[in-house]
Amino acid sequence: MAEHKIIIENISESISVSTGTTLADAAQSAGVDIQQPCGGQGRCGRCVAKITSGHVRQRSSLRLTNEDIDEGYTLACQSIIESDLTVNVPEQEKIERKLVTDLIAKKILVPENYNGLVAQSLKRINLEISPPTMEDQTDDWGRLQRALRKKLQLENVGVSLNLLKRLGSVLREGDWKINAIIDMEFAGSRNIPRVIDIQAGHISEDEPLWGIAIDIGTTTVSIWLTDLISGEVKAQVAEYNQQITRGEDVISRIIYATKNSNEKEMADLVIKKTINPLIETACKRAQIQPTEIYKATISGNSTMIHFLLNIPASSIRLSPFVTAINEIPLLTASEIGIDINPNGTIDCLPGVASYVGADITAGVLSSKVDEAEITTLFLDVGTNGEIVLGSKEWLVTCACSAGPAFEGAGVIDGMRATKGAIEEVWINNDTYEPNIRVIGNSKPKGICGSGLISILSELFLVGLVDKAGNINLNLEIDRVREGDHGPEYIVVWGKESATGDDISIKKVDIENLLRAKAAIYAGFSVLAENVGITLETVEQVLIGGSFGQYINVEKAIQIGLLPDLPWEQFHFLGNTSVQGAYRSLLDWRTRDKVTEIASKMTYIELSADNKFYDAFMSAMFLPHTDLSKFPSVEIALNENLLKTV
Amino acid sequence: MAEHKIIIENISESISVSTGTTLADAAQSAGVDIQQPCGGQGRCGRCVAKITSGHVRQRSSLRLTNEDIDEGYTLACQSIIESDLTVNVPEQEKIERKLVTDLIAKKILVPENYNGLVAQSLKRINLEISPPTMEDQTDDWGRLQRALRKKLQLENVGVSLNLLKRLGSVLREGDWKINAIIDMEFAGSRNIPRVIDIQAGHISEDEPLWGIAIDIGTTTVSIWLTDLISGEVKAQVAEYNQQITRGEDVISRIIYATKNSNEKEMADLVIKKTINPLIETACKRAQIQPTEIYKATISGNSTMIHFLLNIPASSIRLSPFVTAINEIPLLTASEIGIDINPNGTIDCLPGVASYVGADITAGVLSSKVDEAEITTLFLDVGTNGEIVLGSKEWLVTCACSAGPAFEGAGVIDGMRATKGAIEEVWINNDTYEPNIRVIGNSKPKGICGSGLISILSELFLVGLVDKAGNINLNLEIDRVREGDHGPEYIVVWGKESATGDDISIKKVDIENLLRAKAAIYAGFSVLAENVGITLETVEQVLIGGSFGQYINVEKAIQIGLLPDLPWEQFHFLGNTSVQGAYRSLLDWRTRDKVTEIASKMTYIELSADNKFYDAFMSAMFLPHTDLSKFPSVEIALNENLLKTV
Repeated sequence: MAEHKIIIENISESISVSTGTTLADAAQSAGVDIQQPCGGQGRCGRCVAKITSGHVRQRSSLRLTNEDIDEGYTLACQSIIESDLTVNVPEQEKIERKLVTDLIAKKILVPENYNGLVAQSLKRINLEISPPTMEDQTDDWGRLQRALRKKLQLENVGVSLNLLKRLGSVLREGDWKINAIIDMEFAGSRNIPRVIDIQAGHISEDEPLWGIAIDIGTTTVSIWLTDLISGEVKAQVAEYNQQITRGEDVISRIIYATKNSNEKEMADLVIKKTINPLIETACKRAQIQPTEIYKATISGNSTMIHFLLNIPASSIRLSPFVTAINEIPLLTASEIGIDINPNGTIDCLPGVASYVGADITAGVLSSKVDEAEITTLFLDVGTNGEIVLGSKEWLVTCACSAGPAFEGAGVIDGMRATKGAIEEVWINNDTYEPNIRVIGNSKPKGICGSGLISILSELFLVGLVDKAGNINLNLEIDRVREGDHGPEYIVVWGKESATGDDISIKKVDIENLLRAKAAIYAGFSVLAENVGITLETVEQVLIGGSFGQYINVEKAIQIGLLPDLPWEQFHFLGNTSVQGAYRSLLDWRTRDKVTEIASKMTYIELSADNKFYDAFMSAMFLPHTDLSKFPSVEIALNENLLKTV
Repeated sequence: MAEHKIIIENISESISVSTGTTLADAAQSAGVDIQQPCGGQGRCGRCVAKITSGHVRQRSSLRLTNEDIDEGYTLACQSIIESDLTVNVPEQEKIERKLVTDLIAKKILVPENYNGLVAQSLKRINLEISPPTMEDQTDDWGRLQRALRKKLQLENVGVSLNLLKRLGSVLREGDWKINAIIDMEFAGSRNIPRVIDIQAGHISEDEPLWGIAIDIGTTTVSIWLTDLISGEVKAQVAEYNQQITRGEDVISRIIYATKNSNEKEMADLVIKKTINPLIETACKRAQIQPTEIYKATISGNSTMIHFLLNIPASSIRLSPFVTAINEIPLLTASEIGIDINPNGTIDCLPGVASYVGADITAGVLSSKVDEAEITTLFLDVGTNGEIVLGSKEWLVTCACSAGPAFEGAGVIDGMRATKGAIEEVWINNDTYEPNIRVIGNSKPKGICGSGLISILSELFLVGLVDKAGNINLNLEIDRVREGDHGPEYIVVWGKESATGDDISIKKVDIENLLRAKAAIYAGFSVLAENVGITLETVEQVLIGGSFGQYINVEKAIQIGLLPDLPWEQFHFLGNTSVQGAYRSLLDWRTRDKVTEIASKMTYIELSADNKFYDAFMSAMFLPHTDLSKFPSVEIALNENLLKTV
């Protein structure tokens, strides 16, 4: 096959690729990560690049204007290389690598009366082993087993080959005094204890014993480095999940991974490029070595867990939407390449279904829905909305594909909630001029999820957008106009924005937001209907995920995203998934509760009948076709009407 | 560090090594395997090489004459490179690679009434799994577990990550009909069953299900490829253990392995260079793929098992002589790199002590000492003599370091029992002229173990050697002379030998043989004394190992190697170790018996007191100081005396 020389401008060296390679793959080989939020399907138009010499065969040019095409722009994921090329990759299309700060992390409270020596499945014990003599030639491993039998009454204990290799020298180096680390739950089943490390010499009971809680979010991976003896979190680190360059949502990533059998790449992106560097950072902060970490408890949605383990996730995407596995056997760190102690235990928390994963079972645990005396709604909105309704008596759950609109994707001027994002908007009732709040107090670049909810609510209340989401073009104001993408409301004029371009919300964006909020509200409705209650009887609403951190409950109710309940009934819990992983890491009885939660939760498949579709269509209005479900909004509308009159 | 250019004549390319490298290591880097029977200790004098230009620093020149040294000869293992060199490695010093033929393997009898479907811990079952629907979205692994629960009542079943990766596609490829292979005993403990393979579609119960029995001998590795359904051995292959280039006996190899942390090399030599090629050969004969083999049961002495698993064996050699581990947990093939199915089970049989390994527990099993109604002596002579005395009521065991004399090593004209070896000798009572039998009916090259026993016995009976092992130089015959190495008896004149050199047995060889036979006989005596019986009361003697294949019982008794019992009480069983591995492979109840045998056997440490030393000194004569213990020899001597007179 012919080879072509590809030069990416501003990248010093040229690379050589074969005919038929996509430009996106070629750029990756050259070390330039072009973002592909849609997973390389040619749908999002974000992987644009400019061919400055040579030509490519374009499979699709969706989202490019004829003018763009004339100027040499092409979609990198859709461009098949057939000649030598010189390419320019616009700066803004490269993935921005930005450390997610720990701002949102509060001081973590260690569970009351926590006692690591009792609660931990990991035991570290000092052993004094009788040295061999001519009269007692028992083998080294037999001696260690004998000591364990005496000290912990362990009759049947496992050991790895790599530890057996070191056993003889550690015993002799420590002059037959050693400390051993044993996972009492280890080994492909939950009842075979296993020695996972031995070290020469004795060690004080108070010395830290390290574990980590990991939450693999579709967008962000969070790690809490924890001393299992005291229960204290000693370092919290987070970073974008590097899989993000292969699709912003799970569906895009599954498509990407399935397309070219790229499952291994997905595992590498999350393990080698995200988790391991995070572990290194956390260890530096705590001044320890990664090999001192003996256990990792991992939470994440089902797709993230499949990718982590390099298990094909394709069936998650296709009807009837089943996972390969919900309850993962215990593994060792060396089996999947996570850089803690190679014999360390990897405990992936169990999920319930394709779209109700370990992030939700962990979320239920940490939000204590399963212990609630009152009817509780638990909501975790990421790229999907995952909902649990229940109490200590019962739990039902569902997942609605809200799409990534609330994460700022799928919206033309949307962006993630980082510096430069408009996060709140107030629109003057008379002038229709907006007041905005921008993250980091900088020049605005785009609008994040909470900003979109805010704008939509304001536009609706001031009458710039009607019940059906149409922008009112009849008012003679500059900010409302018929733009390139149809009707729009200008939030920020180009002269005030960071990019120099106008920032607006468009008719198509509003349709997107309506679909997203309708999906979630319909999810609530179907769950409630299934157990024969109405949403008004829900006594508290717990919101997990970073999504919930900044949204304004009033405005979310006004657009019909959240049910119309008194504000004090809403509680924002932050990253409930990592909190659940942390609590499971600390205490084996708590860990067992996650399995209990997973088995107890009834999963409702929304696509199984027409109920969801009907509820969805009713919710495609602001706030809803049935305004009586939103009495507070009705009052606000009437008040506004009065003001206007 | 300075680099030096080393040219090995007849090897095209030169290589570059640093100052301080030994010539043996340099040759190995260049792909020339120089044999080091003593493990590179400079004691055997077999790694001789000639320096044709340049010079080396010689740590030791033991066993080289001054003349050799003047001619440029040096011991490769003792030569430190300090300049550029040109070296000539004599052809005969390179390792001879010769396939051990299957001559000694008899047609293997499948145990009576064997039923693989019942006896096997490996189960292959056809499963029909209900496909997922919108109403039943149970995960793939949950479905398989459900089917296993129904069919085999398995409540707790393990699975490896690599199988989970394939699960989804196999289920769908087979349209939810699959066959699964389960090891009912698997997983670091003996009570967690584990799925080790799944394949699309159903399969007939009669189809072969493959396993292998492996015996790792210090000298030879034997593999029996077996259909576990019928129990039939379909291919038998054997090859020299390639570790032989790093020492002929276990002690030399441990020294070599410990010296430069060469444990990994020892594992590679036996796995990659010996076992895996043997598996490939066996599979070709049976026309199957190695991945179709799901289980390997492995026997071997404790050092061989440590080397196999890359576990340091150094403590085996040093007082108080303990192993790192006697009872190895079950492993998977991929953990140690044996080329069968990567999930296949590796079951190493348990040993008892450093010098009573799995080869002996397997030997007791296959020779049925543990079921014997009569007092039985079991003997396996390799480089060590390992002895078991007992019956179904009791078992005692010991190991005596006989040295490799009976394998033809440590004897100047000694060789292994291959083509060209003198295996039996008769000496005329009047002329003192010998008649010889040579393996392969070819020109003689040397003398193997059975030949040495035969010669020594004949020399003693005709009066050429006295009770103390001294050669009688007073007889005026050509064949007895004072040679370079002291007194010797010429067995073959140079003109009739394959090498052109005289083949003789020397005073030093006889001393070597006396020590070897005395050690073994002393072992018998101490065992018997320990349980309060005399050797005369032993009712049968079972001899395992290839050593026993060709020796002449009468002559072995005449030199005092075997106790003086009626010939019909001796039985030669061949390779009892591989037979035991085969029987353990076939039937899990039999396998459990090996563990029972290991725990039941009382190990007697011969160096713990003076008993062994006393017995050894008494046995350093032909046949023994106390002739009354060898009445048949007394009669033979008297008869000879009569003839001579």
